[in-house]
Amino acid sequence: MANFCLTIQYDGTRYDGWQRQGNTENTIQEKLEAILEHLYGEPVDLNGSGRTDAGVHALRQIANFRIPRMMSRYSCQELLSYFNEYLPQDIRVLAVEKAPERFHARLNATGKLYEYRIDCGSVARVFERKYLLRIDEPLNLERMREAASYLVGTHDFKSFCANRHMKKTTVRTIYDISIEEEDGILYLRFHGDGFLYNMVRILTGTLIEVGLGDRLPSQIPAILDGLDRSLAGFTAPAQGLFLVEVYYNNNEDTAG
Amino acid sequence: MANFCLTIQYDGTRYDGWQRQGNTENTIQEKLEAILEHLYGEPVDLNGSGRTDAGVHALRQIANFRIPRMMSRYSCQELLSYFNEYLPQDIRVLAVEKAPERFHARLNATGKLYEYRIDCGSVARVFERKYLLRIDEPLNLERMREAASYLVGTHDFKSFCANRHMKKTTVRTIYDISIEEEDGILYLRFHGDGFLYNMVRILTGTLIEVGLGDRLPSQIPAILDGLDRSLAGFTAPAQGLFLVEVYYNNNEDTAG
Repeated sequence: MANFCLTIQYDGTRYDGWQRQGNTENTIQEKLEAILEHLYGEPVDLNGSGRTDAGVHALRQIANFRIPRMMSRYSCQELLSYFNEYLPQDIRVLAVEKAPERFHARLNATGKLYEYRIDCGSVARVFERKYLLRIDEPLNLERMREAASYLVGTHDFKSFCANRHMKKTTVRTIYDISIEEEDGILYLRFHGDGFLYNMVRILTGTLIEVGLGDRLPSQIPAILDGLDRSLAGFTAPAQGLFLVEVYYNNNEDTAG
Repeated sequence: MANFCLTIQYDGTRYDGWQRQGNTENTIQEKLEAILEHLYGEPVDLNGSGRTDAGVHALRQIANFRIPRMMSRYSCQELLSYFNEYLPQDIRVLAVEKAPERFHARLNATGKLYEYRIDCGSVARVFERKYLLRIDEPLNLERMREAASYLVGTHDFKSFCANRHMKKTTVRTIYDISIEEEDGILYLRFHGDGFLYNMVRILTGTLIEVGLGDRLPSQIPAILDGLDRSLAGFTAPAQGLFLVEVYYNNNEDTAG
């Protein structure tokens, strides 16, 4: 089988996410698969590194698809051109590369980097406004960083998961959370081995509540221990969230 | 009279320009004047540095309004807050400053800087796509710069004006045109003493046609000499155009 790895960028505003939970309708995955079916004349499964929620954006989402060698009639460059010719303007394929036969974008992913962007400048941004959460009250970054330090590590993040019927484990490892302001934009970056449904947005909402003084950093351990969604903060809106990078462990498993 | 100078940023996508030619309906100026009328209880005239066409954006448009001292009950900081509270999100007032009584944003303006942004990268931009013109054929920048050199100086720009019934002079001075590519975006910057209706967009369209090889740089003098709109290139779409800066001659006349 020929195995192709795609790097995909998208503005999630108009979409029901990468792959909808339940009835699919209008997803990024379907837009890409429709082009693959058109090119190869039969349905082709595209494996994304993971789902992104409705409205969430991606700078570098990774996905792969396999095709029997005798059907593999397009080069990487041709596939790149076809995708970008037929895709809507808010989805672009940045790269198409040949991958080792056993590479799987979801199963081989070892980590992800998400970034949440908050507009906290003195005057709200005009041109990036659809990709930012506007907060015009002061945020205490030191307190937010202290709260974040309790979240780093391996924990059961059930309190930070919107899916109440999650049957699989809700244990995840967060390697690092960085909180940096640059030119009036606050960037919250979450690097972890994987994230639950809405998890980054609930983590962000909780950290914002700490930053606004509505919660204390020292309350975070009790929120984790409670294993109850209602203990954590609000779900920050999707529009400020970007999947920045998907990590793979070693060269053998990557697309390179 | 108290005189206030505003620095205004806007995404022009939804608007019929700063001030519509003919019937006004949905303009940036009207949005701002409606707030002034609300604040002062009577109509207040806002003088913009100049019109921007429908769909054109501004990073730093300048405008002023005068109000009798006894009616002047708001500080600059209060005006800034009120504007940004009541304006739609695609218009922001960046600064409100007291200006000398005789400062007039249009009459005292000595120059303007416009920037046209072209996406010429290998893959089209996703997140800035609404503020760029996408061109995926190669552009010869050296030829564009050569063509631009013929446009710099004092000329009758009638061939680059969309208004056929222009009765006033169509002579303008362009001080400089710079053409620079950075990270897949081509920036065409036009610095001049003033620009006619659609002039920057027609200049841009003509330079693009040179860059694509459809015209020669040496044809520019004949286009200028012909004083006929049909000789020049297409009108580049408004979405890629930004009013970047308005210049005033000396400290006495500025808002500072």
